[in-house]
Amino acid sequence: MRYVLIHGSWQDGRCWDATVAALTAAGHEAHAPTLPGNGDLANPAVTMAETAAAVVDLIVSKDLTEVVLVGHSFGGAVAQLVAQQVPDRLARVVFYNAYVIADGATVFTYVPESVAGAFTALASPDGTLTLPYAYFREHLMNDADAATAEWAYALTSPEPLGRSAEVLDLAGFYSLTVPMSYLYAYDDNVFPASEFSWHPGMSQRLPDFRLVTIPGGHELMFSDPAALAAGLERAGRP
Amino acid sequence: MRYVLIHGSWQDGRCWDATVAALTAAGHEAHAPTLPGNGDLANPAVTMAETAAAVVDLIVSKDLTEVVLVGHSFGGAVAQLVAQQVPDRLARVVFYNAYVIADGATVFTYVPESVAGAFTALASPDGTLTLPYAYFREHLMNDADAATAEWAYALTSPEPLGRSAEVLDLAGFYSLTVPMSYLYAYDDNVFPASEFSWHPGMSQRLPDFRLVTIPGGHELMFSDPAALAAGLERAGRP
Amino acid sequence: MRYVLIHGSWQDGRCWDATVAALTAAGHEAHAPTLPGNGDLANPAVTMAETAAAVVDLIVSKDLTEVVLVGHSFGGAVAQLVAQQVPDRLARVVFYNAYVIADGATVFTYVPESVAGAFTALASPDGTLTLPYAYFREHLMNDADAATAEWAYALTSPEPLGRSAEVLDLAGFYSLTVPMSYLYAYDDNVFPASEFSWHPGMSQRLPDFRLVTIPGGHELMFSDPAALAAGLERAGRP
Repeated sequence: MRYVLIHGSWQDGRCWDATVAALTAAGHEAHAPTLPGNGDLANPAVTMAETAAAVVDLIVSKDLTEVVLVGHSFGGAVAQLVAQQVPDRLARVVFYNAYVIADGATVFTYVPESVAGAFTALASPDGTLTLPYAYFREHLMNDADAATAEWAYALTSPEPLGRSAEVLDLAGFYSLTVPMSYLYAYDDNVFPASEFSWHPGMSQRLPDFRLVTIPGGHELMFSDPAALAAGLERAGRP
Repeated sequence: MRYVLIHGSWQDGRCWDATVAALTAAGHEAHAPTLPGNGDLANPAVTMAETAAAVVDLIVSKDLTEVVLVGHSFGGAVAQLVAQQVPDRLARVVFYNAYVIADGATVFTYVPESVAGAFTALASPDGTLTLPYAYFREHLMNDADAATAEWAYALTSPEPLGRSAEVLDLAGFYSLTVPMSYLYAYDDNVFPASEFSWHPGMSQRLPDFRLVTIPGGHELMFSDPAALAAGLERAGRP
Repeated sequence: MRYVLIHGSWQDGRCWDATVAALTAAGHEAHAPTLPGNGDLANPAVTMAETAAAVVDLIVSKDLTEVVLVGHSFGGAVAQLVAQQVPDRLARVVFYNAYVIADGATVFTYVPESVAGAFTALASPDGTLTLPYAYFREHLMNDADAATAEWAYALTSPEPLGRSAEVLDLAGFYSLTVPMSYLYAYDDNVFPASEFSWHPGMSQRLPDFRLVTIPGGHELMFSDPAALAAGLERAGRP
């Protein structure tokens, strides 16, 4: 299969390195671009349109077809925008513990109030947010040892917040007939379970989807990339 | 142990073949009748009374005792009716991702509205429902590869709908003292998780039960019969 | 790491024997005292203050520091009381399918009404409760075979009820900055899932926590102590 992997907030294409290696070793093709606004492409003013356009451009310029488009976390919203632009090039869209945004909503619509306050308080004057290590280690890397958490944290960079507050036109997404999957790693504890859930909270907004569940947390690309690759195969196969 | 396995909608006794083989290899005895109305016994007008009677007759005619009675999906309702007729012959009733019907309710009472509409639209004039492959593959076989899904689909046949709309007298079931178990395969995504759950939705109507959870979906008899047999052993043991 | 393990109701320090062995074999240190009121220290009139004091005394008298304090079930409430008395000696508090009591509440605040009635009916005149085997086997040992359930049951003793009705002053606990984890064994079916949950029900009262989930039920110290020890390592590590 041919994967295009869209990373989440605070990350860049490098987060997928071990997952790409595992997928490639299993005979698949995988592309993992850095989104504009992240990593080397830092830009606090980046928009969702620019972000999605970069993935569309990758797919079109390389003439990729039969793509399994994977969105992780924030990348789920990007995957929705990309899917409605190039549906004919997609075999399936896979959401891995990812946002699924309603038409007319924003990414921040779904951040629990108890966390939104903390995010606002931590935001830099330039409109970016740096994740505190303690939060990252306990909530995103809860399934990893400390050394892995530290290594993964070293690869993060400030996330531009503006695009997550943009109202998204997703009418096209909700009329797509592209098959979709929700890959749910059920140890994820990024947000309080009493206020938020990836599955069934986010997943149930999809028109239809195949559910695949696996153990693990929000950053399996670091804590267990082989398990993530296996999950992506089960989520992405016909 | 001695198992009597009651299949679900669209299926017949053959669905259990690999599970029976696994149970037999582990030293157990297993019976897997085709219910009247299904498979070779197709009959759109079949009633719940006739359906349950066939299982009771099997148990009585073979003089089976200490039976672990297993109901899967729709077969849960049948198991309830059978249990209240021959409780003294049962060691335990096991529900595997199965309906548990309240006294005076119907099977369709518990089908989420969002799915009931689709079922009605798809029903044949003769009162049967043929499951579309896409739904079967994504929702019932989400834990299987495509080849397994296609093989399992080839074994399905139209389900007579009338009996699932029958009001069931289950007062006797709710005064039984037979031990019960709920075997919950937690990757099951037959119905939207936001509207329906096997556990704790269905399970909590049982007077009391042992919970056993396993990975996998609605059709472990096809996707992983060895795991299902192991689950049935844990659910069925004293 | 250095563990102090606080057992739950009906049990005593012996319940941890195999877990202590597994932790010790992995290079850790583990202490598993019998709480006053339980086992050899039977005392129907024991108070929560006396119960917590015994653990505090153990920690102080042995001059233990960098302690991973583990509370199981009822032991969660004890761990909260201990933590607010000796926070500087703790590296982390771990709750394994354990109560987390709100400031000013009691343990019994969180027992579902459907179970509280049965508990009251079963209570002895001396103010203790002996757990019926059938309940223990089906609800606490649902993941074990019958022989293991019988062996574990033989190690139980009557639980003094009075302390579980005591209003607890836990204001100090809720201002602690000690890291905390919730180790959730997700096959636990002690109480009806429709009325009660360890996670996210209990866990969400913690100021913050690392979530670690593992298969298994309420008594992994008996049904799978090696898995419990591994879970405690993941929950307890920095």
